[in-house]
Amino acid sequence: MKLKLILLCTLALIITVAATTISINDKEVTTPEMQSKMKLRHVVMFKFKDTASKEDIKKVEEAFAALPSKIPAIKAFEWGLNNSPETFDKGFTHCFLLTFDSEEGRDEYLPHPAHKAFGEIVGPVLDDLHVMDYWTK
Amino acid sequence: MKLKLILLCTLALIITVAATTISINDKEVTTPEMQSKMKLRHVVMFKFKDTASKEDIKKVEEAFAALPSKIPAIKAFEWGLNNSPETFDKGFTHCFLLTFDSEEGRDEYLPHPAHKAFGEIVGPVLDDLHVMDYWTK
Repeated sequence: MKLKLILLCTLALIITVAATTISINDKEVTTPEMQSKMKLRHVVMFKFKDTASKEDIKKVEEAFAALPSKIPAIKAFEWGLNNSPETFDKGFTHCFLLTFDSEEGRDEYLPHPAHKAFGEIVGPVLDDLHVMDYWTK
Repeated sequence: MKLKLILLCTLALIITVAATTISINDKEVTTPEMQSKMKLRHVVMFKFKDTASKEDIKKVEEAFAALPSKIPAIKAFEWGLNNSPETFDKGFTHCFLLTFDSEEGRDEYLPHPAHKAFGEIVGPVLDDLHVMDYWTK
């Protein structure tokens, strides 16, 4: 009886540990970078007009950052200010990286009223725009 | 004795499950997008010369993709071919996204012999180059 109990407990432990390992491995398999392999990236670079004020630019930053809460198709959003030392930035200062799960997601985003409204905020203060989309390899 | 054993086994199970949960939660806390908040992104866009052959371009793709194995400072690497329907791509076809943990990492990458050697492969077939780096917000 005692032996049976020990065996049973050991078995329970083995199952728990095994299940855990599989679970962790599943998560490891889907690492940030590997998960990103299944994503559609949307890279947006802005160069503002010399006449754009700090307030204009702040308004653009905030309006863009508000889009993910308005457009569910945006699965991830990040942005930052250029700090490349390489001199290949063409005077662009802002880079935004949006992630979609599918081209349908992007198709939902592009004509979305919230995106259109954002375009009206950024358009007048923009000097140049560079956009590339890609499925991550 | 039997009760002690049951208690001991139960305790062992609880500890295992608890440890597992913490481990999994740690992984969940560091989701792809949250982890990316602490990252230095390096976005590289290529426009190839009209005279660049498919083989030239393939060589560039492979040479770039080989850099992470040669330069440990590159913490993540992905790339893809432009498929934006928006007509703001300026004729660029290739977008590469490298991730560094720090500006020191980038400082290691930029003058690295493997990066320099890659520059000699891509330089002759490149028409235009757009590079932006940013700390993710």
